[in-house]
Amino acid sequence: MTRKGDQTRERILVEAARLFQKQGFQTTSLSDILAATNLKKGALYFHFANKNEIALAALERARIELSSFLDNALSSPNPQEALNRYFSSLLNWQQEKGLVGGCIFGNTALEMGDTDERFASFVAAVFEDWIIRLRNVVEEAQLAGIVRNDISADSLARHMVAVTEGAIMLDRLNKNNRALSESFNNLKLFLFLDSK
Amino acid sequence: MTRKGDQTRERILVEAARLFQKQGFQTTSLSDILAATNLKKGALYFHFANKNEIALAALERARIELSSFLDNALSSPNPQEALNRYFSSLLNWQQEKGLVGGCIFGNTALEMGDTDERFASFVAAVFEDWIIRLRNVVEEAQLAGIVRNDISADSLARHMVAVTEGAIMLDRLNKNNRALSESFNNLKLFLFLDSK
Repeated sequence: MTRKGDQTRERILVEAARLFQKQGFQTTSLSDILAATNLKKGALYFHFANKNEIALAALERARIELSSFLDNALSSPNPQEALNRYFSSLLNWQQEKGLVGGCIFGNTALEMGDTDERFASFVAAVFEDWIIRLRNVVEEAQLAGIVRNDISADSLARHMVAVTEGAIMLDRLNKNNRALSESFNNLKLFLFLDSK
Repeated sequence: MTRKGDQTRERILVEAARLFQKQGFQTTSLSDILAATNLKKGALYFHFANKNEIALAALERARIELSSFLDNALSSPNPQEALNRYFSSLLNWQQEKGLVGGCIFGNTALEMGDTDERFASFVAAVFEDWIIRLRNVVEEAQLAGIVRNDISADSLARHMVAVTEGAIMLDRLNKNNRALSESFNNLKLFLFLDSK
């Protein structure tokens, strides 16, 4: 594809993701996406067959973004540093987004979880990958005596993702970042042995 | 209103809530609700002016349900017993619902949070009330030396609701109850001083 074609595709995905997060997937029409991107129908259909294709491509784009976010946040060889950086990077990300829109994966899970199996399984796989990456770092931290080891790393990692998703939802609703920042402080007290 | 009128209104709210939870509020049409309740348009319009009115009444019905659930679960004079009963009652509730639909308040928050201020503020108030009730029991438990007191009761209560909402979302997606049951075990280890 030409560079211009790539740019158009990217523009469609950025605007579509913004609309999906703001007003939900079901409410967003192809006309909304055309209006937001200032494109003609033909240009949009050149890239995507229908709204579902756009939504899945937008989710794939968000998956890659989350993946490189996690690579970056969890990259430290010191597991305590990695976990601390993970918490502070996520708080920064929430601030930068201005608390609007919430988490695209959580939103999709809640909007499409019971209706469209393709969306549900895509999002379930994203959460599993997120949990596995956290689990690996938590396991290292347990071996290093930094994190409590009376609970499995897998259970701790799942708990961390549940807390994050629930807190992002509460904060989106209250338009502040209180739940996520307090919950991360609580998680640190729960996880780290030296904080007791 | 007659007893029959009450029953019809109730039937509309039950079916509408089921549809909203399954397929989202935006996708559910008045025709879907008519089909599910087997009512004629006139009967529905006798009770509600439009879909928004039905949605707000369904949320109000769910709010009352949650409120009496919390009254019941948290009623023990012993705060440790109250918290334990709270955790086990919520797990039972999740099992009974068959994990489908998730939490109507979390779903509404995510679907309507950025678009309709009436829904957002209704749901925000429900979560605040839930947090305050938990906070009161946590405070008692702190005074009784049962729950850690290095974190405010308010922050602990907010954390408990965030965990619950995030875990219900993950479990709905994965069609099991692992996240909620593991997260509640983790919360108990985090909260109760004698579990250290």
